[in-house]
Amino acid sequence: MTAYETTLPVRFGQVDYAGIMFYPRFFDNFHAAFEDMFGDRLGVPYMSILTDRRIGFPTVSITTDFKKPFRFGEPMRLVVDVLRIGTSSATLRYRGFNGDSDEVSVEAQGTIVVIDLDTFETMPFPDDIRAVLEDLTA
Amino acid sequence: MTAYETTLPVRFGQVDYAGIMFYPRFFDNFHAAFEDMFGDRLGVPYMSILTDRRIGFPTVSITTDFKKPFRFGEPMRLVVDVLRIGTSSATLRYRGFNGDSDEVSVEAQGTIVVIDLDTFETMPFPDDIRAVLEDLTA
Amino acid sequence: MTAYETTLPVRFGQVDYAGIMFYPRFFDNFHAAFEDMFGDRLGVPYMSILTDRRIGFPTVSITTDFKKPFRFGEPMRLVVDVLRIGTSSATLRYRGFNGDSDEVSVEAQGTIVVIDLDTFETMPFPDDIRAVLEDLTA
Amino acid sequence: MTAYETTLPVRFGQVDYAGIMFYPRFFDNFHAAFEDMFGDRLGVPYMSILTDRRIGFPTVSITTDFKKPFRFGEPMRLVVDVLRIGTSSATLRYRGFNGDSDEVSVEAQGTIVVIDLDTFETMPFPDDIRAVLEDLTA
Repeated sequence: MTAYETTLPVRFGQVDYAGIMFYPRFFDNFHAAFEDMFGDRLGVPYMSILTDRRIGFPTVSITTDFKKPFRFGEPMRLVVDVLRIGTSSATLRYRGFNGDSDEVSVEAQGTIVVIDLDTFETMPFPDDIRAVLEDLTA
Repeated sequence: MTAYETTLPVRFGQVDYAGIMFYPRFFDNFHAAFEDMFGDRLGVPYMSILTDRRIGFPTVSITTDFKKPFRFGEPMRLVVDVLRIGTSSATLRYRGFNGDSDEVSVEAQGTIVVIDLDTFETMPFPDDIRAVLEDLTA
Repeated sequence: MTAYETTLPVRFGQVDYAGIMFYPRFFDNFHAAFEDMFGDRLGVPYMSILTDRRIGFPTVSITTDFKKPFRFGEPMRLVVDVLRIGTSSATLRYRGFNGDSDEVSVEAQGTIVVIDLDTFETMPFPDDIRAVLEDLTA
Repeated sequence: MTAYETTLPVRFGQVDYAGIMFYPRFFDNFHAAFEDMFGDRLGVPYMSILTDRRIGFPTVSITTDFKKPFRFGEPMRLVVDVLRIGTSSATLRYRGFNGDSDEVSVEAQGTIVVIDLDTFETMPFPDDIRAVLEDLTA
């Protein structure tokens, strides 16, 4: 098991009037980590899965605990792993840390399904994508 | 009990490559409904609570089920009510419907806390704000 | 000539650390007004032009002057008219006002082209869309 | 003169129904490059200028030509330089390239002013910030 880890900036445009990351913007970072994880682990850009293979991964549910705010300028270290894989769905966990801290500042569990982008029908994970997710399993 | 109801457009800029609302954008709509609810029920703009009274409502957790996609151009009817009020926190429920449908397409339960924006310390709900939330209690 | 006018809220999520609308967010409002204008004037939702007729309107250039900030909670009144129409391009003007003020707070001139969404090739304006834009001509 | 260069991903969440970057999202990338440039050249995070020194740089005008679309997955290479510096304003140029291409795909010229974030009054550039911008002058 090897969780995927990446560090994303907290941008001026993601920060609110109170100087902390506006909560909807966390989900952009989770998705960015999801994209980068596939690029890194599958060896082809995430977009090619969508455009060339016509496979998509809509999120059907997500639960998020915001434990500690992220201020503008603080890097967000994100660790992505997989809690569960089924035939055509999987639950990913996103844990965000303020820079070098080892205390979880935000934690989300999001469930995706695999669909055929032309029919929007559920389909089983292709083998190569399943292998990527299995390698992320805690 | 009178739930707050509003209808928000699904914008071109909120829709993804697959033609459906990108999941992080739902949270912008939930927050927009939260803002409009306060403006409507408190009789003053939501911003005045922040800027004049220096009170904020960060979201500390949110659970969301995306049951049915929203396509670009479909209006999102949002119904907001309150499931629980404590001294300094409350859980709001957001149910989204595709236009006139009476089937829930998205449902979220988000917990906010009340803070003093100058100290970021938790504080009890002021009476007028508590009254607004109590009126939304299911 | 009848310019299109609409009023859009300045949302918490569009406001930055300094309490004013972050400049990239203005363009979301301009596009929202563009969408609503078509819905209002053409009598069908803007999205149907894209999804049913496979016609798109990418912006090829835009010039914007931000004269006065918009604070969170101030409504943005937007007036949209057309400065020029060619065979397959048009220049629209967006003027934004802080609520009831008659002083222009933001002004943009954006040029769109008409494309076939399947080929990405430029095409002439269809007659009904041209008529909508001509009616907006100053 | 040493222009600042950075490469930013084109994210799924920035791409529209037509599969290309939605034009308002370019401005988020320009601002991200602006932030990263200051962090790199000033040696302290951009946010510290705002939060510690209470200095801000609102954009007062920007002109943008979108010459070639960016598709999801294509990296955007951004080159930032300075066309003009005055006492309390400067014009920056942003040129975006599709990955390794040496053809400009998007070009923007944006003018910022320097303000005191507590009074919103214009102020002269501090010497260290002026030096950073002068080093970027074409």
